[in-house]
Amino acid sequence: MANSRFEYVKSFEQPDVLLPNTWIVVRIDGRGFHKLSDHYAFAKPNDRRALDLMNAAAVEVMKELPDLSIAYGVSDEFSFVFHPNCQLFERRNGKLVTTIVSTFTAHYIYKWSEFFPERPLLPPYLPSFDGRAVIYPNSRILRDYMSWRQVDCHINNLYNTTFWTMVLQGGMSNTDAEQELKGTVSADKNEILFKRFGINYNNELEIYKKGTVLYRQYELEEPKPTKAPADEESPVVESQQSRSQQDKIRKLRRKAQVVIDHVDIIKDEFWEKRPWILSGNPGKLPA
Amino acid sequence: MANSRFEYVKSFEQPDVLLPNTWIVVRIDGRGFHKLSDHYAFAKPNDRRALDLMNAAAVEVMKELPDLSIAYGVSDEFSFVFHPNCQLFERRNGKLVTTIVSTFTAHYIYKWSEFFPERPLLPPYLPSFDGRAVIYPNSRILRDYMSWRQVDCHINNLYNTTFWTMVLQGGMSNTDAEQELKGTVSADKNEILFKRFGINYNNELEIYKKGTVLYRQYELEEPKPTKAPADEESPVVESQQSRSQQDKIRKLRRKAQVVIDHVDIIKDEFWEKRPWILSGNPGKLPA
Amino acid sequence: MANSRFEYVKSFEQPDVLLPNTWIVVRIDGRGFHKLSDHYAFAKPNDRRALDLMNAAAVEVMKELPDLSIAYGVSDEFSFVFHPNCQLFERRNGKLVTTIVSTFTAHYIYKWSEFFPERPLLPPYLPSFDGRAVIYPNSRILRDYMSWRQVDCHINNLYNTTFWTMVLQGGMSNTDAEQELKGTVSADKNEILFKRFGINYNNELEIYKKGTVLYRQYELEEPKPTKAPADEESPVVESQQSRSQQDKIRKLRRKAQVVIDHVDIIKDEFWEKRPWILSGNPGKLPA
Amino acid sequence: MANSRFEYVKSFEQPDVLLPNTWIVVRIDGRGFHKLSDHYAFAKPNDRRALDLMNAAAVEVMKELPDLSIAYGVSDEFSFVFHPNCQLFERRNGKLVTTIVSTFTAHYIYKWSEFFPERPLLPPYLPSFDGRAVIYPNSRILRDYMSWRQVDCHINNLYNTTFWTMVLQGGMSNTDAEQELKGTVSADKNEILFKRFGINYNNELEIYKKGTVLYRQYELEEPKPTKAPADEESPVVESQQSRSQQDKIRKLRRKAQVVIDHVDIIKDEFWEKRPWILSGNPGKLPA
Repeated sequence: MANSRFEYVKSFEQPDVLLPNTWIVVRIDGRGFHKLSDHYAFAKPNDRRALDLMNAAAVEVMKELPDLSIAYGVSDEFSFVFHPNCQLFERRNGKLVTTIVSTFTAHYIYKWSEFFPERPLLPPYLPSFDGRAVIYPNSRILRDYMSWRQVDCHINNLYNTTFWTMVLQGGMSNTDAEQELKGTVSADKNEILFKRFGINYNNELEIYKKGTVLYRQYELEEPKPTKAPADEESPVVESQQSRSQQDKIRKLRRKAQVVIDHVDIIKDEFWEKRPWILSGNPGKLPA
Repeated sequence: MANSRFEYVKSFEQPDVLLPNTWIVVRIDGRGFHKLSDHYAFAKPNDRRALDLMNAAAVEVMKELPDLSIAYGVSDEFSFVFHPNCQLFERRNGKLVTTIVSTFTAHYIYKWSEFFPERPLLPPYLPSFDGRAVIYPNSRILRDYMSWRQVDCHINNLYNTTFWTMVLQGGMSNTDAEQELKGTVSADKNEILFKRFGINYNNELEIYKKGTVLYRQYELEEPKPTKAPADEESPVVESQQSRSQQDKIRKLRRKAQVVIDHVDIIKDEFWEKRPWILSGNPGKLPA
Repeated sequence: MANSRFEYVKSFEQPDVLLPNTWIVVRIDGRGFHKLSDHYAFAKPNDRRALDLMNAAAVEVMKELPDLSIAYGVSDEFSFVFHPNCQLFERRNGKLVTTIVSTFTAHYIYKWSEFFPERPLLPPYLPSFDGRAVIYPNSRILRDYMSWRQVDCHINNLYNTTFWTMVLQGGMSNTDAEQELKGTVSADKNEILFKRFGINYNNELEIYKKGTVLYRQYELEEPKPTKAPADEESPVVESQQSRSQQDKIRKLRRKAQVVIDHVDIIKDEFWEKRPWILSGNPGKLPA
Repeated sequence: MANSRFEYVKSFEQPDVLLPNTWIVVRIDGRGFHKLSDHYAFAKPNDRRALDLMNAAAVEVMKELPDLSIAYGVSDEFSFVFHPNCQLFERRNGKLVTTIVSTFTAHYIYKWSEFFPERPLLPPYLPSFDGRAVIYPNSRILRDYMSWRQVDCHINNLYNTTFWTMVLQGGMSNTDAEQELKGTVSADKNEILFKRFGINYNNELEIYKKGTVLYRQYELEEPKPTKAPADEESPVVESQQSRSQQDKIRKLRRKAQVVIDHVDIIKDEFWEKRPWILSGNPGKLPA
């Protein structure tokens, strides 16, 4: 309804549709979680309940948005991935990012007391998240993005595990531990952990070492001998699909269970066994 | 720390800095609040507690982000306004929008039980918000934006008040009420309210008729006889201000109380008495 | 050199870097060529000299910008294609587009008298071109873009050939010819040409039916039995290549001759025989 | 005409409409003019014919595009300014920039022989230009942009005049002159010119010292005592003007003569006497 002479201000809104046929990654990050984790006394180097809360909130986001293909979380960040075929919100950047950020925040706040029953939330220490969308032109680069985050997880976790062991078990000051770790490589840190503290880093929990990957569960498939990447081969522009086709696929996705996994997503195996993630076509539901 | 051969994926992130020296409006909207308000049985045409909750969450956003100049809310939407001088997050669009959306959501969820003690939140009916940023090149157009929202509030509220009175007090069906209101102008609706139900629309609550404006409270000033718009006259590029100047202004803003008001923001008077809103310079704190 | 208090205005310049690892197509179009072609009495439906001039100008653009992979021209438009690896001007949209538009215009004006010696240019009828860049995420879609232009060439040329034959040889008025052609399909037009005028459309010049494709000439290769698309498989981010590598490839490209061809670019054959176009790697120079 | 299954590629074209109600500056720059000016033996420090050619080409651009308000040129660059009300090409960035770049290039090449009759153009030394659009939110900042370019002109010309006088008249080597000028301020350069060579910089040609400003000529007006900036006061959104109003204004603009001036555009006087430039309303045509 054209309500007034002021309506011309709408002409200042600028379009922000993301390039078609590209992977969309929305990564969200905790705002000021360093301070926050101090305030609520998160365990060091990893707080299992805090990670479980992140994952629980992320699962809800995956459930609310069946268009999401996969998500990967580490520490206070989570990356949500939409397939190149995704037409949700006409691929509007702002709409996609704010919906994910807000939905995630809502569940995180809502579920907090379930994971931290003895530490009630208290403003001004209320958790919040910012986020951004980045597009990647093909699945090779999307996988490199996912690998980048998982390598980052590994590097940070090895460092943090060593650092906090030196401080908490070794009685070193933060400064001394930091100083000693400067310039060390992975092997050095592994050795410190093993020789000084008898800790074999390989025995650390997978959730700490690998982060968390969320996806819809279908029957695993056997990797085929030679496979060209599915998405580049068939640039189906979903807008050419009928509405009812899109709705049907969405329904199928809703039926699949969202699983929480802590596995290697850098090597091919993960992707070859779960071809539905890169193809965008739902797999076979487990019996 | 350059951690791996995967890091090149960062080059796909694209800048989204908003044009300098423009007003930034971040408007957020409730997602699916039609369904939500049914589920939690919001009163019609206005639910006072729901509006108070919106306002309470918005006040918290204003407090956390001293860079905000003013905010205006109606129904399940809120517009937050940054001054042209604002340098928060280097004016990055995504960062500004998601921070506001997430902070608002967090407080809205957190405070829910305070405003709706007898109606606990229950997924999947968890409130969330989307948002977008729009820039306006001068204060004349910013004021037109604010006027647009307040006119919209008026038009919708008059319609809704009439419609729900016809239904709830007049016993009409939704369809019949809708049918009768089709094509009516304001005078018609005022007459229906007054003649049939003895309701003088002018006596409705200001919060319903005018919406809610939030701003920092300083001593009101007397409108000066002739005044050129402050911001266009002096395009101070804040990046040229020293860091310490910016911090100082931020501190002054934090000291001012955020007030909740329901007044006309279309006419000049509101702005002339509160010149700090358009100028960006803190006023005098009340004694 | 920081020259004055006015320099802050540079902060209003906004970045326009195109997404990495995508194909860049810069398409330019003649401005007001309808009027222009009347003024300089271009032959209908095709003016061979005008097309040759377009092609000559485009060849010069290809020579000046060795980063260009291929170009396709029809009528008063030309599409210039940069490979996903292209780093020219840091992939800045404005710089790429204006450089091509200006270089093309310069050569077009400069060479005019060579192609139209008897029709000197006379302002205000001075030819000019506008242009735009579009990015495509993979070579499948780039090829669809090229196919789109060539199909367009075919459709327009068949229509124009029929229309102008009806008018020039058949003595029909423009309106009558237009009227009769409304709603006809290709077969109808072929029949009109053949039955009424004894013209077999297949015998028309290839340059009119297929448009013009420009590329660097290397030794043709035999299509291999199975081939995955080269560019998606190896997302080499050229910025990771050394400067000297990039310069070397540029030199190799300069050595190759730019050829003017009028062939089918929709089927696979064209691309399979000339793998250097999609791979971005120079081929073997002919002996 | 929906011509084929390839047409979906059009969906990859992204909008690039510039923010309404802002000043648009399109600045073009000569590509590789350092080399070019050597090749065609431009006089140092200023070549009058080269500047006159730049200005002549720019005048033609002003004439072809009546929407242009003003232009400013120095050396091998030119800035063309559209008023906030401008709706040309729906304010599409690419269209505006490429049209100006191409039109300018066309006239520059076309007129070359008129200004350099004895030095015919010879590829590969064919002049071309790149360009970009920048928007400015109000006339204060637009004027700062114009001032920035004119200050730049002054600084560069004073340096170049001194440098080339030292070299050409003083017989110094380029390196020695450069070395001596390092770290000098304006007063130093003025003194070198005056004491060593008897040159009073103030007597240099205005076109060298001030650059060139182009605008449409109406009757000059007397500056009014107090004047609020016209454009911010009345944010007329031209799209709300009728088509016929816009056409009428365009016609009036075409009637005004485009003048070539070399005057100070930093102080208020220039703008106050020619209020039509900032207001966008045509003035009174001289009798």
